[in-house]
Amino acid sequence: MSEPAKTPLFGTVAFVGIGLIGASLSLALRRGGLAGRTLATSRRQETLDTALRLGIVDDASTDIAAVVKDADLVMVCVPVGACGEVAEAIGPHLKPGAIVSDVGSVKCTVIKDMLPHLPEGVTLIPGHPLAGTEFSGPEAGFAELFEQRWCVLTPLPSTPKGALDKVAEMWRAVGSNVDMLTPEHHDRVLAITSHLPHLIAYTIVGTATDLGTDLKQEVIKYSASGFRDFTRIAASDPVMWRDVFLNNKEAVLEVLQRFTEDLTALQRAIRRGEGDTLERHFTRTRAIRRGIIDAKQA
Amino acid sequence: MSEPAKTPLFGTVAFVGIGLIGASLSLALRRGGLAGRTLATSRRQETLDTALRLGIVDDASTDIAAVVKDADLVMVCVPVGACGEVAEAIGPHLKPGAIVSDVGSVKCTVIKDMLPHLPEGVTLIPGHPLAGTEFSGPEAGFAELFEQRWCVLTPLPSTPKGALDKVAEMWRAVGSNVDMLTPEHHDRVLAITSHLPHLIAYTIVGTATDLGTDLKQEVIKYSASGFRDFTRIAASDPVMWRDVFLNNKEAVLEVLQRFTEDLTALQRAIRRGEGDTLERHFTRTRAIRRGIIDAKQA
Repeated sequence: MSEPAKTPLFGTVAFVGIGLIGASLSLALRRGGLAGRTLATSRRQETLDTALRLGIVDDASTDIAAVVKDADLVMVCVPVGACGEVAEAIGPHLKPGAIVSDVGSVKCTVIKDMLPHLPEGVTLIPGHPLAGTEFSGPEAGFAELFEQRWCVLTPLPSTPKGALDKVAEMWRAVGSNVDMLTPEHHDRVLAITSHLPHLIAYTIVGTATDLGTDLKQEVIKYSASGFRDFTRIAASDPVMWRDVFLNNKEAVLEVLQRFTEDLTALQRAIRRGEGDTLERHFTRTRAIRRGIIDAKQA
Repeated sequence: MSEPAKTPLFGTVAFVGIGLIGASLSLALRRGGLAGRTLATSRRQETLDTALRLGIVDDASTDIAAVVKDADLVMVCVPVGACGEVAEAIGPHLKPGAIVSDVGSVKCTVIKDMLPHLPEGVTLIPGHPLAGTEFSGPEAGFAELFEQRWCVLTPLPSTPKGALDKVAEMWRAVGSNVDMLTPEHHDRVLAITSHLPHLIAYTIVGTATDLGTDLKQEVIKYSASGFRDFTRIAASDPVMWRDVFLNNKEAVLEVLQRFTEDLTALQRAIRRGEGDTLERHFTRTRAIRRGIIDAKQA
């Protein structure tokens, strides 16, 4: 990491929602001297007490208006389904020139939900750090979470370059590689790389859970034979993921349809004993793994 | 690891097939002083040349009869679909008192295919070490592969206790925890913990591969958002997995049917915007991950 800057990138950064992502970003900003001070608001006082106790932010309050009113940057770090109401709640209290950004896994609906509530003179920079763990809450946060991970920003045609550059600089300063995509393209790419894998992992772990109690113990015992990787994904935050699927419905249903067709084709090959079909399919998938290793994402 | 035994557990151990599993076991046996000598046979001279060059076995030949004729233990380490023909090829050449064991991921069909070809006085101990990587071939082998992993043995009612104990002792000596299941039960448990996860990983990686070339590059770039875990599984040996699905057809199709029903229910909930259904399902799956962590399998 670079030395703390003499002048912080942002004076006051306010976090609306201080779970795994918000807490990690606040810790990273403080470590890098990137924010003059960091504040947090949440519906639950208990969450704020934890954040204060762990030294994640300088100050915190459940009074959302009070927390955002002096902020130069408001980071909205709540499940994507709650972004619209957050924008509605903060809109009247934002100071002119403030930047509002978010970390949601879906971009089109978040922009549609937030934009109408933000006053003139306030800029929305929609963002999505591709980082996380299966843990949640402020106590799960750590400053290194974003290092060597992608952060995708999805600016609108009207987005001022100055504000965009500043948010990009922040993500780079906490260790991320910043990429720009249109919101629509982001939502399509993430549907296949993230949303569908999560949906499938949730499904298969649920299927196993429904097996008899005896078998369930053995599923746990022998999980290392393939199942374990799915359970880690399927332990991710339920509310966050509920909102992802509800808000990226069209793209998820489209890739799910393709997946189901492909699975049905393999099922048919198994039922009919068509070994060539299976082997050909399984051989093809090795290449994409190779691509991931070459891209140093493995 | 314990000190090398004064008297090896087996005099001569012959490997039929010397890929990832066979090579790893041979290396582990040699390291532990558990075999007087180890031999290998394979259809391909090139594979044997590699095994000899890497010091994996003492001697090797494509002449299967010559390799197995003096063996006290013959370890059949080939894809499960080839076990029957291997048994047929070695049966007439085995010495009285020899033990034949295997490492296949499916047990019922392997037993059915092998048993008729083994002469009286030769004992079959069906086994399955739950260990592996996404790499294959003798050069992928390493002596530590089986440490702290399960090895399931699936003896028949007629299996002599002496031979069973000896094979179990070998797996314990290379670091595994040994468990006993009936072949039928093994095949049902593995269908959900291993075979279905692999089938699904192969499917989703194939689905992504079929997307346009532009999107494919982004799938690779953003794979860390969930997709990556699937690609590792989907890079496993294609022939081995083809045979697993063809040979555990009934159990795999049954759990696949359950999985598809569950996925359809979640798909319906997404389409209808039923957030409560999604959240309830996603909350339930966290518990099984917790069980895996408690069982120290994570």
